[in-house]
Amino acid sequence: MATDDMPGKNEHPAIDPARLRDTIDQYARIGATTGGGVSRLALTDEDREARDLLTRDLEAIDCPVLVDDLGNMRGILQGATALGAIQIASHLDTVIRGGRFDGAAGVLAGLEVLRALRDRDSVPSRSIELINWTNEEGARFEPAMIGSGTATGVFEADWMHARTDREGIRLGSELERIGYLGQQRHRPPIGRAYLELHIEQGPVLDDLRKPVGIVQGILGITWVEITVTGRSDHAGPTPMPGRRDALVAAADIVRAVRTIGEAHGAPSVGTVGRLDVQPNVVNTIPGSVRMSADFRAPTLELLDSMVDRLQGCVDDIASTRDVEIAVDRFWTSTPVAFDSAVIATIEQACDAVGVERIYHWSGAGHDARYAAEVQPAGMIFVRSRGGVSHCEDELSDEADIALGASVLLHAALLLAEDGADDAAERKQPGGSRHD
Amino acid sequence: MATDDMPGKNEHPAIDPARLRDTIDQYARIGATTGGGVSRLALTDEDREARDLLTRDLEAIDCPVLVDDLGNMRGILQGATALGAIQIASHLDTVIRGGRFDGAAGVLAGLEVLRALRDRDSVPSRSIELINWTNEEGARFEPAMIGSGTATGVFEADWMHARTDREGIRLGSELERIGYLGQQRHRPPIGRAYLELHIEQGPVLDDLRKPVGIVQGILGITWVEITVTGRSDHAGPTPMPGRRDALVAAADIVRAVRTIGEAHGAPSVGTVGRLDVQPNVVNTIPGSVRMSADFRAPTLELLDSMVDRLQGCVDDIASTRDVEIAVDRFWTSTPVAFDSAVIATIEQACDAVGVERIYHWSGAGHDARYAAEVQPAGMIFVRSRGGVSHCEDELSDEADIALGASVLLHAALLLAEDGADDAAERKQPGGSRHD
Repeated sequence: MATDDMPGKNEHPAIDPARLRDTIDQYARIGATTGGGVSRLALTDEDREARDLLTRDLEAIDCPVLVDDLGNMRGILQGATALGAIQIASHLDTVIRGGRFDGAAGVLAGLEVLRALRDRDSVPSRSIELINWTNEEGARFEPAMIGSGTATGVFEADWMHARTDREGIRLGSELERIGYLGQQRHRPPIGRAYLELHIEQGPVLDDLRKPVGIVQGILGITWVEITVTGRSDHAGPTPMPGRRDALVAAADIVRAVRTIGEAHGAPSVGTVGRLDVQPNVVNTIPGSVRMSADFRAPTLELLDSMVDRLQGCVDDIASTRDVEIAVDRFWTSTPVAFDSAVIATIEQACDAVGVERIYHWSGAGHDARYAAEVQPAGMIFVRSRGGVSHCEDELSDEADIALGASVLLHAALLLAEDGADDAAERKQPGGSRHD
Repeated sequence: MATDDMPGKNEHPAIDPARLRDTIDQYARIGATTGGGVSRLALTDEDREARDLLTRDLEAIDCPVLVDDLGNMRGILQGATALGAIQIASHLDTVIRGGRFDGAAGVLAGLEVLRALRDRDSVPSRSIELINWTNEEGARFEPAMIGSGTATGVFEADWMHARTDREGIRLGSELERIGYLGQQRHRPPIGRAYLELHIEQGPVLDDLRKPVGIVQGILGITWVEITVTGRSDHAGPTPMPGRRDALVAAADIVRAVRTIGEAHGAPSVGTVGRLDVQPNVVNTIPGSVRMSADFRAPTLELLDSMVDRLQGCVDDIASTRDVEIAVDRFWTSTPVAFDSAVIATIEQACDAVGVERIYHWSGAGHDARYAAEVQPAGMIFVRSRGGVSHCEDELSDEADIALGASVLLHAALLLAEDGADDAAERKQPGGSRHD
């Protein structure tokens, strides 16, 4: 769409990489840690400071900011029509000693999109809104993604407000204290489409040496609690034959989960992250082990098949090792495949920017998981150096973020110029499919 | 030696099973738990009560009691000569919520031996002494077997007195408080031989359906600390290939230790009892694992070979799983083979009592471990039902304990009538080997 013969204000809006870099640096100073990371837990003074800065930055480009009763912020760049808006969203909260990019890169890339539009006095057909969701990380208040989850109807507002942190402080009280308890009527409406840029938080793009990925969906997750019960005996006088060693059986299970993850192939994964031994004493044969298994897969069928295969392995192990093993699949988040039209738009945006189309499933959860339940959604990933995240060493190159922001800008504009308004039609019984 | 034609006081001394059972019941009431076990930690009020009762019981049969500066008690049944004594020993302290038999069975079988001699007014050639060692369990003050270890020169008395429990109370202060801080000159001298009866604390005799075992020695023990360092990543976005999962490597090590224990054959064993995962979170790939390995074998060569084999496995695992593994062999207790002449005497005693000669290595440590360093020593095991110990369910049949006590009595008398006094000779330079 960029036209060489129309300079100045009529040029296609473009990301300013230096401004985006400076903005990321500026926000990273709020809650900066000595180790080069950021601690900006949800609804703390640091979070308020970042929110206040975002409010000023949005108002400075004539985008009014609305705050809903969940603390979700929404800055609006008004479009030429009243058609459903394009939402760009992510989060400004971090984990303890987290990185500078997780969440912030998405919000600030969105801010840069709005600034780029204002640079050219460009007024899109649809409004473009920038959302900062409350408490995405779940590092202070559990569960994670509670702001987007409540806004999309997964949780109740009262329940969300009653969540407490480790000191027993209520989420609702903190919203009020920092001045971000707004109006329910300001909750983000269902728009035309939802876009979220996020750092990958994994090594795939880095391994492929590609800066940007098109996210196909968010893997389903299932968590399993496994309890192995053997018999605790003195490690000296108990001969090897006849032992009922819960840890030896648990070791078999760790390897089985690894094998299941490998056998199902990418993007499916299987991990034992937690394992607790009883009594956990050097000279005592372990009597019991409690451990977790985390399985992720792009379809519910694959997820079920992983758990089925675990159950088969566990039955064999229980028999071989003479122990009892209980398997409790206590939580499942179903997979979400992103909207094919939104993905196609992101593909076009990649082509326009000149970055290769690299497809990717997200292994981690994101606010887009909930947004996709109520409107067409898609995500753009930016390469994470070394794949590390949730730590001070988290790093994404400024050039990569600028490329991702350019893809975001192009995708948002393509969607904003789309005349069809399915969501609005759904709200008008008998309305024509042609606008 | 029992002679049918010499009734009454000239009969061979014999164990009174009912008296022994009643005595065990009586002592088990001191520190009795509601679950049917005993909590009688070293140098507590309960330990004092048991010690006071033992003093009264010994004095009642005209066996004066000496207490040394380590709290070790020694009741002396004076022999006809001044030749080196026969020592019968064990301990009255228990672990928290321990059983009624661990330690007490040995002391009270010894008390029954002395009572049986007094029943017949039998005066052996050598004195027979009953020792109750201080703090065998190590459950209150570490390390275990500190009373026998200090008496035999492994530890210094000042160091022993300075040991503190979890409340910071000094062992020496507690000895004084309960009235069992005696004289250094009362430490048990090196005798002619040392005998210890103990419950097996393992399942071997129970599996063989045999009541009594002849202990050939105490297995050597080596403890190894293993540290696995991989890379902690998010369990979702990190593909299976390229993971550096410390727990998967640790699982390989758990299985290797099991295999090494099995491959070395009985009585050698190998156990991973302790394993701690970092960060131990359901959705995070474990970045590091610290774990123990406990190896036991009847010779130092076998023990070394187990650790060598572990090192070989660990090198393979580190390479296969792309992790670093550090192996620190930080403690070794060398194996002790008991004196062949003492074992032969116990064999004779078994024959006299009519119990089968069943040979056995002790996988657990006992005070006899230290005693064997300074004098000929041997041990007699009594069957543990189900092999369980250090818990309230610990159980040995009264008939089995009575049989073991009969073997102990016969062995003590055989040794007490042995005219040679090697230990006394060693103390007299130039002394004749014939007494």
